[in-house]
Amino acid sequence: MTAKIVTLTTDFGLRDPYVAEMKAAILGISANTVIVDVTHEVEKFNIRMGAYLLASVVPYFPRGAIHVAVVDPGVGTQRRPLLIQTGQGFFVGPDNGVLVLAAERQGIKSIHEITNQRLMLSHVSSTFHGRDVFAPAAAHLAKGLPPAEFGPEIREVVRPEFAKVKCVKGALMGEVLHVDHFGNIITNVNEEQLVNLHAKSSLNVCLPNCKVTLNLGKTYAEAKPEEALALIGSHGYVEIAVNQGSAAEKFQARPGDKIKLSLT
Amino acid sequence: MTAKIVTLTTDFGLRDPYVAEMKAAILGISANTVIVDVTHEVEKFNIRMGAYLLASVVPYFPRGAIHVAVVDPGVGTQRRPLLIQTGQGFFVGPDNGVLVLAAERQGIKSIHEITNQRLMLSHVSSTFHGRDVFAPAAAHLAKGLPPAEFGPEIREVVRPEFAKVKCVKGALMGEVLHVDHFGNIITNVNEEQLVNLHAKSSLNVCLPNCKVTLNLGKTYAEAKPEEALALIGSHGYVEIAVNQGSAAEKFQARPGDKIKLSLT
Amino acid sequence: MTAKIVTLTTDFGLRDPYVAEMKAAILGISANTVIVDVTHEVEKFNIRMGAYLLASVVPYFPRGAIHVAVVDPGVGTQRRPLLIQTGQGFFVGPDNGVLVLAAERQGIKSIHEITNQRLMLSHVSSTFHGRDVFAPAAAHLAKGLPPAEFGPEIREVVRPEFAKVKCVKGALMGEVLHVDHFGNIITNVNEEQLVNLHAKSSLNVCLPNCKVTLNLGKTYAEAKPEEALALIGSHGYVEIAVNQGSAAEKFQARPGDKIKLSLT
Repeated sequence: MTAKIVTLTTDFGLRDPYVAEMKAAILGISANTVIVDVTHEVEKFNIRMGAYLLASVVPYFPRGAIHVAVVDPGVGTQRRPLLIQTGQGFFVGPDNGVLVLAAERQGIKSIHEITNQRLMLSHVSSTFHGRDVFAPAAAHLAKGLPPAEFGPEIREVVRPEFAKVKCVKGALMGEVLHVDHFGNIITNVNEEQLVNLHAKSSLNVCLPNCKVTLNLGKTYAEAKPEEALALIGSHGYVEIAVNQGSAAEKFQARPGDKIKLSLT
Repeated sequence: MTAKIVTLTTDFGLRDPYVAEMKAAILGISANTVIVDVTHEVEKFNIRMGAYLLASVVPYFPRGAIHVAVVDPGVGTQRRPLLIQTGQGFFVGPDNGVLVLAAERQGIKSIHEITNQRLMLSHVSSTFHGRDVFAPAAAHLAKGLPPAEFGPEIREVVRPEFAKVKCVKGALMGEVLHVDHFGNIITNVNEEQLVNLHAKSSLNVCLPNCKVTLNLGKTYAEAKPEEALALIGSHGYVEIAVNQGSAAEKFQARPGDKIKLSLT
Repeated sequence: MTAKIVTLTTDFGLRDPYVAEMKAAILGISANTVIVDVTHEVEKFNIRMGAYLLASVVPYFPRGAIHVAVVDPGVGTQRRPLLIQTGQGFFVGPDNGVLVLAAERQGIKSIHEITNQRLMLSHVSSTFHGRDVFAPAAAHLAKGLPPAEFGPEIREVVRPEFAKVKCVKGALMGEVLHVDHFGNIITNVNEEQLVNLHAKSSLNVCLPNCKVTLNLGKTYAEAKPEEALALIGSHGYVEIAVNQGSAAEKFQARPGDKIKLSLT
């Protein structure tokens, strides 16, 4: 039998033992599990960033993968631990929006609140449900336990805060979803929306701290080094980039910034 | 047969090839091994920090796990390479205190000096025993080789420098063990000691750079954002925290700082 | 059957989902693969650093390992995707020099351009061949597909820019290959070249920003704390180090700097 995949997305960083404690909890329950780190460098408490990163990575995993995401400022409070089953796999984490963006794109089939204490570590701390609740739940799922065993089915969950792209007077009004390691500015405007704008070889881009006309290209190296361009990034969204440089630095852009794209 | 788990704790960082060379050495000897990174971000040469992180993580791993820790300023000198067998698993690393805190909590059964050169890489460098001595030893253990094969049994080992908590005039005198990624200040005062203090809903906390009265809570979100509190952390020790902020920054605390907890 | 090893070396960092997307692509094609991160902290676009790190780590992996390296400023342009077979394993990545240093040390048997689109992800982006081309190629290799299936055999490839050590008037003229996490200055002068210099217990070292006479030692702790020495590092090259300190900081050295070693 193929080993089940469990992915981990957290804001824990890699210096502390927290991520390894989650892995230990998983392997103690389900030894034959392949654990893949998505990232542990989500900005502390930044649910929106966690939701974005999780939604980006999930489509590339094979069917049946179990995704654990822990960005959890409300740990130990009334916020519920969730298990979401989709058409493609499972999501485990707190009910604060971090799971929903990714789960919805796969089609949500059911949502359960995790309440069954026999499926948690024997001592559940008030400050680390990643290790004591979510990791064990993922491991039991990996062993084949059905979602209904974990707790009651529920309907309403907290949704993450992402704006929808609007078309106003022929311009696309969107937002910056993420600035990556290379300084690329990734927006929420997708390829189809850009095509509908009938943009040709260039684009007016308006960000809070700059207004600029950029060439529309296919890959970074079409611009000269240090020169900016717009393109469709590897996840299908409009991206503002600088060849071998940082667009976020050049244009002083940050996640959450409004962006306006219009014809030149 | 279930694959054996080998964990790695080092001060090597993740930029250089050193950690991967240890993994290569392990997989070359014992292909069917599950390697788990605890952390490679121990502060350079900080044996105490390595010892603390290792001791924190080890209880969560299943029986039989093999823990390699390499914080090793004396590599290549007379300091001995050790293999410690406990009631729960194995520890491999230099004889400088980094292993002992974790190993003692599991009950030490035997300590061997690693001297058998047939169980090392064919060329042993003077500067990288993590790859040439410790990783191969862990891999041979994972394959089932008994500790006596590695070298002579020994009795005395170097111990890490951790203070014991003292109770002086009704106050607990302890120290800061660790400051984590979130800025939580983790002390060496455990839950039982705090209970014996008969603290109720608040606590006087005295650190080198501050004196403050804090509420005693169960989880971070009981305090308002940016507000401090004291609680029992996820490893069972008193922790000073700030909800969605850094207690270490607020109170200018560092590992090794003395801390005094008393009744209000 | 033993699981195949695939190693990953990139400049992607660990904050974004890119590395996990590569792993997802691999596991989706070849579930029974052991993926080992070499590093994702290659300096952005620094092909030379990627080539050095890959060449350092590769000798420690068992026969048959598949090494993927992605430092790829020319992604999406005419630069070719390569698959190199050596006497020891396989290398997959862009034709920009990042693979060749490591591959040549193992003896190159064949080089193929990867052109077979059935062995790539169904949608190949113009900006992320690590996920869409190289990771799938590695996974298909792990499943046993022969190199000839991937595309036509080619002869000429781009070579990385590394200087050769020269002996001028009894002095060795080399360069700094790498500065590691500890601040050790790793040069391209190997042990044999140093032996031929007939250096005894000390060495004159000339770097762009300093001229110094150093003791020749075997391990770091032979120098006093904060004191510098020269030694043969764990990869067989002359290294300038400071015991429990940073030689690169002390001597203001950087990768690419010229270095001259001569008799005292």
